[in-house]
Amino acid sequence: MSGTTQSQQKASVAFRRVVRPEDGLAVRRLVESTGFFRPDEVDVAEELVAERMTKGPASGYEFIFAEQEGQLRGYVCFGPIPCTVSSWDLYWIVVDPACQRQGLGRRLLQEAEKAIRADGGTRVYVDTSGREQYQPTRQFYEKNGYRVAAVLEDFYAPGDAKVIYVKVLTATGNSGKL
Amino acid sequence: MSGTTQSQQKASVAFRRVVRPEDGLAVRRLVESTGFFRPDEVDVAEELVAERMTKGPASGYEFIFAEQEGQLRGYVCFGPIPCTVSSWDLYWIVVDPACQRQGLGRRLLQEAEKAIRADGGTRVYVDTSGREQYQPTRQFYEKNGYRVAAVLEDFYAPGDAKVIYVKVLTATGNSGKL
Repeated sequence: MSGTTQSQQKASVAFRRVVRPEDGLAVRRLVESTGFFRPDEVDVAEELVAERMTKGPASGYEFIFAEQEGQLRGYVCFGPIPCTVSSWDLYWIVVDPACQRQGLGRRLLQEAEKAIRADGGTRVYVDTSGREQYQPTRQFYEKNGYRVAAVLEDFYAPGDAKVIYVKVLTATGNSGKL
Repeated sequence: MSGTTQSQQKASVAFRRVVRPEDGLAVRRLVESTGFFRPDEVDVAEELVAERMTKGPASGYEFIFAEQEGQLRGYVCFGPIPCTVSSWDLYWIVVDPACQRQGLGRRLLQEAEKAIRADGGTRVYVDTSGREQYQPTRQFYEKNGYRVAAVLEDFYAPGDAKVIYVKVLTATGNSGKL
């Protein structure tokens, strides 16, 4: 984006899986800064971090944080789907607006897929909305090997469908083959 | 069923929405008695009752118990889907094997739909399996006005699809019209 300085582009990104108490507030601020999510959605984002802090892996939520010079630039939240052998859900993927269009979302997604594969996962599901606002979101998943598995019309609200994406993870690479 | 006595058939069924501490164990025994669910699924069934007891409506789980002469004969567990305007999930519906084929499942389903409609719900979703074992389950939903909204292949395990049913509730009756 135009507001991105050369130094930001060059600062290397570190990925971290350990969740710390201060991540809750950092996630809230990051999610708010996008201007994309409703207040109740922002609350949920922060609550999932708290849930992970309290219950650990039993929470069902895994996180990968992307940091640049100690600052949270993005994160992804995912977890195994209960009562399935090897299906996982991708719950959240958020990138700081000042760091978008630099491939950080793609790298976070790849980090999540790597972690899921390492844990024996074979299928990644993402629920998103069919609304116009989510068109770039859907395009992001499509570019990254996800395909539409189902469309549930009027799921979220009249005229607001749930679009379910899936990517089948191969044993050897990031690309899904169906 | 052949084991059903005449007196059981005649005893009237009472529906109850209030959840009591002793329901957890009663639900466990009922769910186990069907021989249909895995041990981890039985645990989940009991845990949802505990979750409702602890958190109340904030748990997101509503229950309707069907009792005959004080004995639990079946129950249904359902709840509003977060971040949707008026979509609900039907999580569990279980009937005592000795009381099956008497329309109790259908009555529980209708009671749940009535409660959902009274709470402003307009769409009821049910996830079930595409496996052969679940063929009577799928038939049950189809007979009661549910239609397949999506099939997610290999969702639960290789060869075990998730079948998502939906019923659109009308304001005036139990029948869904799409």
